[in-house]
Amino acid sequence: MNGMTAEIVTIGTEIIIGDIVNTHAQYLSQKLASIGISVLYHSSVGDNPARMQEVLRHALTRCDLVIVTGGLGPTTDDLTKETICEMLEIPLVEDPRAKTEILEFFRRRGISCTENNMKQAMVPENGVIFYNKYGTAPGMAVQKGTSCVIMLPGPPKELRPMFDEQAFPYLKQFSDREIVSHHIRFFGLGESTIADRLGSLTDSSDPTLALYAKEGEVSARITACRPTWEEAEAAMLPMMDTIRSMFGNDIYGIDAESLEQVVVRELLSRKCQIATAESCTGGLLAQKITSVPGASDCFQYGLVSYSNTVKYAQLGVPEWVLRKYTAVSRQTAFYMAKGALKNSGADIALAVTGLAGPGGGTPEQPVGTVYLAAATRQYTWVRHLTLGHGKGNERDMIRNVAAKNALDMARRILKNNSSL
Amino acid sequence: MNGMTAEIVTIGTEIIIGDIVNTHAQYLSQKLASIGISVLYHSSVGDNPARMQEVLRHALTRCDLVIVTGGLGPTTDDLTKETICEMLEIPLVEDPRAKTEILEFFRRRGISCTENNMKQAMVPENGVIFYNKYGTAPGMAVQKGTSCVIMLPGPPKELRPMFDEQAFPYLKQFSDREIVSHHIRFFGLGESTIADRLGSLTDSSDPTLALYAKEGEVSARITACRPTWEEAEAAMLPMMDTIRSMFGNDIYGIDAESLEQVVVRELLSRKCQIATAESCTGGLLAQKITSVPGASDCFQYGLVSYSNTVKYAQLGVPEWVLRKYTAVSRQTAFYMAKGALKNSGADIALAVTGLAGPGGGTPEQPVGTVYLAAATRQYTWVRHLTLGHGKGNERDMIRNVAAKNALDMARRILKNNSSL
Repeated sequence: MNGMTAEIVTIGTEIIIGDIVNTHAQYLSQKLASIGISVLYHSSVGDNPARMQEVLRHALTRCDLVIVTGGLGPTTDDLTKETICEMLEIPLVEDPRAKTEILEFFRRRGISCTENNMKQAMVPENGVIFYNKYGTAPGMAVQKGTSCVIMLPGPPKELRPMFDEQAFPYLKQFSDREIVSHHIRFFGLGESTIADRLGSLTDSSDPTLALYAKEGEVSARITACRPTWEEAEAAMLPMMDTIRSMFGNDIYGIDAESLEQVVVRELLSRKCQIATAESCTGGLLAQKITSVPGASDCFQYGLVSYSNTVKYAQLGVPEWVLRKYTAVSRQTAFYMAKGALKNSGADIALAVTGLAGPGGGTPEQPVGTVYLAAATRQYTWVRHLTLGHGKGNERDMIRNVAAKNALDMARRILKNNSSL
Repeated sequence: MNGMTAEIVTIGTEIIIGDIVNTHAQYLSQKLASIGISVLYHSSVGDNPARMQEVLRHALTRCDLVIVTGGLGPTTDDLTKETICEMLEIPLVEDPRAKTEILEFFRRRGISCTENNMKQAMVPENGVIFYNKYGTAPGMAVQKGTSCVIMLPGPPKELRPMFDEQAFPYLKQFSDREIVSHHIRFFGLGESTIADRLGSLTDSSDPTLALYAKEGEVSARITACRPTWEEAEAAMLPMMDTIRSMFGNDIYGIDAESLEQVVVRELLSRKCQIATAESCTGGLLAQKITSVPGASDCFQYGLVSYSNTVKYAQLGVPEWVLRKYTAVSRQTAFYMAKGALKNSGADIALAVTGLAGPGGGTPEQPVGTVYLAAATRQYTWVRHLTLGHGKGNERDMIRNVAAKNALDMARRILKNNSSL
C-alpha cells in the first residue's frame, strides 16, 4: 500500500484549551514521514463524545490511516475505543493478558483496582494489542476495509515507547520504503557561505540536502528514501563524504551531539583539563560544560568576573590594561584567559568578555561586542565577534552565541594540537 | 454573542510533516479562553489548496469563529486569503496603507519589491485590517452572516504582537465576560503541604483555585470570570489576601517573575552585592543571576570550583575539612560561602556542593545529596537537600532545583535582614 495517507487526531480538553502544547502530532508526524506515510491533517478535539465522533468519522473518510491519541483512560469521559469500534462495527472483547497486566499494575502499587479500570482490558475483536509497560491503558490497532486505526494512550511517557516499540514496527507493513536523514553540524561559517560552497549539491534531488540555521549554528540535513534502511544509508554516503572533505574542521559533528558534548568528549579522551573566565556570559559557558555528565574529570575551575576588581584581583588582569583598553577588549580577554590558566593549572582556558545588553552599548562599542580568548601553555588566541542585530533585547542570544563560539575555539584547538 | 465557539486552523506543511510544533494553537487557545470564547477544535493542514479549502469550509460549518494562521505570504502556495474570500464571496481590493507599508519595508532593507509581494496588499472588501509591524503580510478579520474569520501571518514574531495588539481587542466585541487568572508562586513547601494548608479553599468554585508543581516550585492559579476585568480582579482579591497571609515568605511572587528576578530586584533596591561558589551546579546559579538584565550592578564574583584543589586554593576551604568531611558536606558548603564572601567583598555569598550524578553516588551519600550555604558578614546558614528519586538520569533536574534553592535562601535572607 504505497502512498498511504494519515491523519493524527489528538483527543484531550487540555490541548484545545491551551493548557498543553500538542507535541504528539509533531512526534508522530516525524516518525510516519520516516517510513513514507504522508500525514495530511492534524486534528484536536476535547473529551466530548459527539464532537469526538464527528472528528473521527471525518478523519476516516479522508485518510487511510488514523492515529488517535488520548481518551483510553478509565473514566467515563474516555471514549476513544468505544467510539471507534462502534463506527467500524467491531465488538469489544476482554483481553486476558491486558486484564492480568492491569491487576498486576495495581497490586504492585498496593492500591485497589476499580471496575472502571477493568474497562481498559476491553479490546477490539481481532485487533492488534500494544501492551503498556508504563501505564494501564493498552494501545491497539484495527483494520476494516482499507481503513486502519491506531489508538495510543495520551501520556507521552506511555505513548512514545509504545509507538516506537510496537506501533511503528506494525506500521512498517504498510510501507515499502525507509526515509533516513543525517544532520551535518557546522560551526564558524554563516549559512550563505555554506550554501555558496555547497553549490549545486543543494539542488540534488536524491539524496536531498537542506540547510537550517539557528543561533550561530548551521546544520545540513541529508535525506534519502530507499526500500531499506541500509540502502538509504548507502545512498547518502558519497554526499556525506564530499561535504566532510569540503568543510573539514568547520563540521563539529554528525547528528545529535552538541558543541559542549564534543568538547568534553575530546578533553576526556585526551586527559586534558579546561578552565573558564567569564564576564558577559556570567557562568553560562561553565554551565554548558558541566551539563555534560563526566565533566568533573576535565573541568575544575571557572570564574565569573563581572567587575574590574575581580578581573584584577582574581585573574591578574593588569590595572593599566583595564584602564587603557576597558574590560571589553581583546587585551582584557587575553589576560583573563592567562589568569584562568594560571589559577587552574588546566591545559586550556577560555575567556569571554563583552556587552550582552540591553544597556551599556556605545556607538564605538555596541551591544553584541564580544571578545573571546583561549590560552594554552604555548599560545593564546583572541577573537572579536559582533553579535545580534542591535534591535530589541538580544541578551540571551548574545550570551548563548558567545558561549558557543568559546566552545568552538576549544574544539578547534583540541583538533589542531596533538601535543596539548 | 455569548458562548461563541471557535476553531483554530494552522496552515503549513512544516507543521504536518513534524518539522515544527504547533505553538500557535496553544497560544491562541489560551487567549480566547481568557475572554470566554470556547475553542472546540484545532486543525492543521499543509499548503495544498484543495485540502486547505476543505478544512476551512468544514471549520465554518461547525464554529462561529475561525482563526487561520499562515498562508498569507507572497508565494503562489500562499492561498489562505484567496480561499476564504472565495468561500465567503467577498472580493479582494488593494489597501493603500498596506501597499505603502510593504513598499517602505523593502525600501528600508534596500531590496526590490516583486509583483508577488504586492499580492499581500490585497485585502477583503470591508474587512478589518491588522497592519504588520514585523513583516509584510497584513492580518485581517471578515464577518459574513454569523461567521467571523480572522487571518494571521504564520511567523510567531509577527503573529503574537498582531494578535495581542489588534485581533484580541477586536474579538472582545464578541465577548461579554473576562476570565482573569493570577499565579501565586511558592518556594520551599511541597505541593501536598500547600494543599493541606489551603484546605477547603481548593474546593472553591468561584474564584477557582488549582495547584501546579514543577521542579521544586509550586504555583496556585486563581481564576475568576466576570463581565469586566475590574470585577474579576475584585472577585479574586479576598482569596489572594487570605493565601498571602497564610503563607507569608513561602510565597516568592505573584504571576510571571522568576526567583532570580525577585532576588536581583531585591539586591538592586537594597544596593547589595551577591557572590557565588558552585560545585555541582557548575555555573548554573551564576548563569541564572546574570540572565537578569542589570545583574552586573549586584553581582561581581562567581567561582565554579569542581575540584578540592580549587576549593582549597581559591576559596580557602581548609584541607582538613575536605579530608575529614569530603567535598560534599555541610562543612565544605560553609567554607565555600565564607571564601566567596571574602574574595568578593559582597554582602551575601551562596555556595552549592553536591552530587548531580549520574555517577558518584554511594549508599550513605546518594546522587541528589546537596549542601547549600549562604553567608553574610554576620551569619552563615547551611541547608541539606536530598533531590530526585534516585532513578534515571536526573542530573539536569538536580542542578536546577539546587540552584533554585540557593536563590531561595538569598531571597529569605534579604527579606528577613533589613540591616544587610
